[in-house]
Amino acid sequence: MEKVNLAQKFSLFSDYYSPKIVGELNDTHVKLVKVKGEFVWHHHEAEDELFLILKGTLRIKYFDGDQEREVILGEGEFVIVPHGVEHKPVADEEVHLLLLEPKSTLNTGNVKNDRTIEELQKI
Amino acid sequence: MEKVNLAQKFSLFSDYYSPKIVGELNDTHVKLVKVKGEFVWHHHEAEDELFLILKGTLRIKYFDGDQEREVILGEGEFVIVPHGVEHKPVADEEVHLLLLEPKSTLNTGNVKNDRTIEELQKI
Repeated sequence: MEKVNLAQKFSLFSDYYSPKIVGELNDTHVKLVKVKGEFVWHHHEAEDELFLILKGTLRIKYFDGDQEREVILGEGEFVIVPHGVEHKPVADEEVHLLLLEPKSTLNTGNVKNDRTIEELQKI
Repeated sequence: MEKVNLAQKFSLFSDYYSPKIVGELNDTHVKLVKVKGEFVWHHHEAEDELFLILKGTLRIKYFDGDQEREVILGEGEFVIVPHGVEHKPVADEEVHLLLLEPKSTLNTGNVKNDRTIEELQKI
């Protein structure tokens, strides 16, 4: 039973919007990711996602019906984006995040483009 | 889509070994718990559990075959206890934890005693 030190894992990579798998339990992957700049609008058909902020401030734009809204998350805050909700993370500065998602989750959800990463690295 | 502030949630309760549900995604509950002292030896038949330390130092005693071992977790560290593994958290001082577990998880696993909490509070 190996413990995971979040800071040590974050020291192993520097690329943005490229989640790394650091744990798995049941049907869930625990991922760490560094983000900076805007991601793409997308949603996940079946998977809810949790975003926990470990460093920095993240804005998540999303649609509530046809109303565009934004939630602003600081360190020690999380939000769960339910499946089906169109969303787009925006990081004005570098942000460190812990993500919880079903193992079936694709980072760009219903969208496939150059930001899509089919096979995530385990670190 | 409501964000959750961990520190604010921790300010709402002070009882030990009484996990509170602060989020749910897919089949998983996100729980916060304060612990101090020893818990009971138990295991979960089917559920893996994640313990992420937010404050303090937690020791988790466990059995690796018939060998008793211990993992010591500090702030920013987590461990996943696989289903079937006999374990017992021990906190020499107050520890604040985030737990991830399937919704089906009972806090005392295969054991039912006065530490068992059948219905967890949502805060």
